[in-house]
Amino acid sequence: MTQRIDTGTIEIRVRYAETDAMGALHHSRFWVYFEMGRTELLRARGFDYAQCEREGVFFVVAKCAARYLAPARYDDVLELTTTITRMGMARIDHAYELRRKDPSAQGGDREGRMIAIPEAIRGEE
Amino acid sequence: MTQRIDTGTIEIRVRYAETDAMGALHHSRFWVYFEMGRTELLRARGFDYAQCEREGVFFVVAKCAARYLAPARYDDVLELTTTITRMGMARIDHAYELRRKDPSAQGGDREGRMIAIPEAIRGEE
Amino acid sequence: MTQRIDTGTIEIRVRYAETDAMGALHHSRFWVYFEMGRTELLRARGFDYAQCEREGVFFVVAKCAARYLAPARYDDVLELTTTITRMGMARIDHAYELRRKDPSAQGGDREGRMIAIPEAIRGEE
Amino acid sequence: MTQRIDTGTIEIRVRYAETDAMGALHHSRFWVYFEMGRTELLRARGFDYAQCEREGVFFVVAKCAARYLAPARYDDVLELTTTITRMGMARIDHAYELRRKDPSAQGGDREGRMIAIPEAIRGEE
Repeated sequence: MTQRIDTGTIEIRVRYAETDAMGALHHSRFWVYFEMGRTELLRARGFDYAQCEREGVFFVVAKCAARYLAPARYDDVLELTTTITRMGMARIDHAYELRRKDPSAQGGDREGRMIAIPEAIRGEE
Repeated sequence: MTQRIDTGTIEIRVRYAETDAMGALHHSRFWVYFEMGRTELLRARGFDYAQCEREGVFFVVAKCAARYLAPARYDDVLELTTTITRMGMARIDHAYELRRKDPSAQGGDREGRMIAIPEAIRGEE
Repeated sequence: MTQRIDTGTIEIRVRYAETDAMGALHHSRFWVYFEMGRTELLRARGFDYAQCEREGVFFVVAKCAARYLAPARYDDVLELTTTITRMGMARIDHAYELRRKDPSAQGGDREGRMIAIPEAIRGEE
Repeated sequence: MTQRIDTGTIEIRVRYAETDAMGALHHSRFWVYFEMGRTELLRARGFDYAQCEREGVFFVVAKCAARYLAPARYDDVLELTTTITRMGMARIDHAYELRRKDPSAQGGDREGRMIAIPEAIRGEE
């Protein structure tokens, strides 16, 4: 089971410049979004990554894996949930879930269509 | 008349990730291409911009203007002509012409369809 | 004088992936932001550009010009004011002002440092 | 062992707009490069992906995984080797190796520093 040390959710609206000729959010942009998720998770806990860098502390992405389940489209509002799954001395592991926010969703059924999940949890489906 | 202190042409193939949902090269990417044109014009004259930065000399884009005449598509090969039109002590002005390279063009009629030109020379058409 | 047919302001936080090796927001991203400003101005007036496209109506950027006054940095919160300055049958002109939002600004002095303005209004300063 | 159905190598020069405030190629751009590798591998075998799309055949990226070993910098010339490791009816698997091209390398020792490899072959190191 994936550990959930800390988790947070942000909303991101797909920009026109992020789509491609197929009409979908280009898969390279997922990594831009995931980075935003990490930044905002840090901020919610009182850390400022911009300040970290000014003090000479940098986070480097060492590996990444994702599975894309459905295309996101221009102007879709997505919900990105970022979870810290492991914290070590020199390494933090994150998992991400990206869903289309369903404007009509209510109550217990508020989740939209899943767009992307980490490849690492593929075996758990 | 626009002065031509120095000029150079490079070829750029439009990447899939640079297109948008309209199927065309997104207009923000023109500025990425124009920057490549400046870099290669410098390199052709024996300057290495990466080295300039390591020595603490940075070029900052202070203003820009362009006119878009036709869309470029995924996988199009474009010809970008970069021209230095003015050189001052602390400022260099460039003009750019971006054309679709016509694979069937020959001899004196080798120019493809114009994609973008600088707004500044609009009045000269 | 620039006409102000309609105007709206949005906030945009600079993403890490939008910076460049100089540590600043890359100038090509301004056009991504300006496009967001147009989209949100439309939305605020009840128009949905994504829907427009599904109905076969596309807006094409035909020309653009900007003047960059100060760099924006990673994680800066910027305020983008988008103004429709002219509306014709087949053409809409926009002007943009991009400022760094000053978190300490108060009362009548709430405006932060200007980042970019349209080149066209340069002469009016 | 990874199967090598087909393989090809292209050179890519890191653009300024692709770097980030850390001075390195942003990790989201790797996926833009990998897509270029796929396109050129297809072209080398006589297929034109742009034409495929015009005929209604689209390739969708369903999952991806990579491991980043060293940063690439602005103006570095990289060598990307793209390999088809599996071909099925509705799915093609690719592996990528991205190296910095060493301008001083000669003879049998011509390979530069490795930048990225697929996560999937991690276990084989």
